[in-house]
Amino acid sequence: MVKYKDDMLNTTFSALADPTRRAILARLAKGEAQVTEQAEPFGISLPAVSKHLRVLEKAQLISRHVEGRVHRFTVNPAPLQSANNWIDTYQKFWEQQLDSLGEYLKHTRSKEKAK
Amino acid sequence: MVKYKDDMLNTTFSALADPTRRAILARLAKGEAQVTEQAEPFGISLPAVSKHLRVLEKAQLISRHVEGRVHRFTVNPAPLQSANNWIDTYQKFWEQQLDSLGEYLKHTRSKEKAK
Repeated sequence: MVKYKDDMLNTTFSALADPTRRAILARLAKGEAQVTEQAEPFGISLPAVSKHLRVLEKAQLISRHVEGRVHRFTVNPAPLQSANNWIDTYQKFWEQQLDSLGEYLKHTRSKEKAK
Repeated sequence: MVKYKDDMLNTTFSALADPTRRAILARLAKGEAQVTEQAEPFGISLPAVSKHLRVLEKAQLISRHVEGRVHRFTVNPAPLQSANNWIDTYQKFWEQQLDSLGEYLKHTRSKEKAK
């Protein structure tokens, strides 16, 4: 289970590490879209967009709905939720550490002023 | 500025797409650590850990503090915050879409039951 979760996080973060793929996901946040609609705003070729869509599909970040020749796409938020959860879990610790450091520095400074 | 932000997100997500690097960040959430302390729990060689640490350092996810021969590491939460913000922004839209779909299905079902 941990291995599966780890693999999924690898795939999700790897898929998000590309600006065109993030832009595709951002476009799909507005609603489902066809491949041709996907290609227009990026000024890249249809095959290039198709390749990015396949990466996102493999990462289970999007779903493809085929109606005849029309391929439509929607976003699956679940893997993104897992990615967010991973960051959230540890971010709390790091922020606590920074808060403690901040408090320590404030305390040290006020002690120095009092001298 | 957008280009810089995009580049930073590429680097952050790419750095997070590896289980050892995520484990190193998770370890650093407990407090700063030396390279040798980093290598122990992963059962991998020191050079392998050093390589991962360089990737994390280049992505500005960690900072290195050198005291003589001792290299200590701490986490920088800022790039993780940006990654989280990116996901958060769009997740809201996708969840709204799923909520609307859920509402629509509930509505359709209750209408069918009423028939």
